[in-house]
Amino acid sequence: MMTIYGDTRSGNCLKVKMICDLLDLGYRWQDVDVLSGETRSAEFLAINPSGKIPVIQLIDGRVVSESNAILYFLGVHSRLWPEDPFEQAQVMQWLNFEQYSHEPNVAVARFIKLYQGLPANRAAEHLRKLQGGYQALAVMEQHLARRRFLVSEHLTIADISLYAYTSCAHEGGFELGRFPAVARWLMQVASELLGNKQSESIHD
Amino acid sequence: MMTIYGDTRSGNCLKVKMICDLLDLGYRWQDVDVLSGETRSAEFLAINPSGKIPVIQLIDGRVVSESNAILYFLGVHSRLWPEDPFEQAQVMQWLNFEQYSHEPNVAVARFIKLYQGLPANRAAEHLRKLQGGYQALAVMEQHLARRRFLVSEHLTIADISLYAYTSCAHEGGFELGRFPAVARWLMQVASELLGNKQSESIHD
Ligand SMILES: N[C@@H](CCC(=O)N[C@@H](CS)C(=O)NCC(=O)O)C(=O)O
Ligand SMILES: N[C@@H](CCC(=O)N[C@@H](CS)C(=O)NCC(=O)O)C(=O)O
Repeated sequence: MMTIYGDTRSGNCLKVKMICDLLDLGYRWQDVDVLSGETRSAEFLAINPSGKIPVIQLIDGRVVSESNAILYFLGVHSRLWPEDPFEQAQVMQWLNFEQYSHEPNVAVARFIKLYQGLPANRAAEHLRKLQGGYQALAVMEQHLARRRFLVSEHLTIADISLYAYTSCAHEGGFELGRFPAVARWLMQVASELLGNKQSESIHD
Repeated sequence: MMTIYGDTRSGNCLKVKMICDLLDLGYRWQDVDVLSGETRSAEFLAINPSGKIPVIQLIDGRVVSESNAILYFLGVHSRLWPEDPFEQAQVMQWLNFEQYSHEPNVAVARFIKLYQGLPANRAAEHLRKLQGGYQALAVMEQHLARRRFLVSEHLTIADISLYAYTSCAHEGGFELGRFPAVARWLMQVASELLGNKQSESIHD
């Protein structure tokens, strides 16, 4: 069985948990405590030289790091990866947007506020992260105003990726009330994720 | 013919030019001047609502943004995208590493030094970007010490993506002499890119 190295407080790690639960993929979860620096231990660096979680390790020992690459690897043969090359490119576009324009603002604002208690010496940085995050959310709002999901009419790994930190953006100080289409999309993605859980427990 | 909106001073835009030249894809290049704010004009935002170059526009008007998504779209049916799903995941891993850990450090350090002349009020930030960039280069060095290219024995879009800003990292203040495997890999990628050019001109 595959092992996921992760920390449940991290949205990047939750992406991996979400796709596994959605696709009913079995895994062993190995907690790695980011806050106490476990990602910097020699033991962990031997698994992922870039010192970051999440990481998955396959039975044969091979490793994939980077949350969005893991989403791709686990989702590529499922309904979460479209067949059409242009739609695939759109998924790639949103995954890159997430890593470049969304996560570095929304996740870092949350980290500073939720886990560091917004200390005075990071207040200016928190403000800049709010501004950057609001820009990213505005791009999503404009796009989602005319669509059910980010790409096509179905859930893809792009939705899972952007759901991770958008769904807890309020913990970073963001007011999602300003973004009705994003709020509607969050509910839609949540119900897809939950829907599967519910049908699972019916079958249990 | 497809249109590329870009600025040749930007490594993200050069990625697109490189793959087109390598695969002999025809395009019309439309200059967009980032420094004078053309990416924020209403006209450009109608093409890419996230206000960033590069963007490609297909003949039918459809648009792909995000440099690495464009590399995927143009390369997916070529030798630059591996067939094996695990190797595909490795390519995805390096593309995400590039956007998250490499470009935001290496490209921004270069911007501050080369285009802004390293002003005093950005000196501390430049130093942080050097530190982050050196960490990313060290990850590449360790990986490339045992490999010809980032994934498999052949050039992939991951190499093109990371080549863009690694090849001009010295303009940001990085000393690449510290990274012999990276330096060797840069030569290798350059010769693949150039090799095609040369055989082109032989055929012309
Ligand atoms: N681009 C990576 C980012 C992962 C990341 O930054 N993980 C954090 C936890 S959310 C981490 O491991 N930080 C420890 C460190 O960077 O030393 C991904 O998407 O997986
Ligand atoms: N993640 C994007 C980054 C693109 C990017 O930041 N482009 C810069 C030029 S290198 C730009 O358009 N900046 C203008 C702006 O952000 O307003 C990509 O890889 O394409």
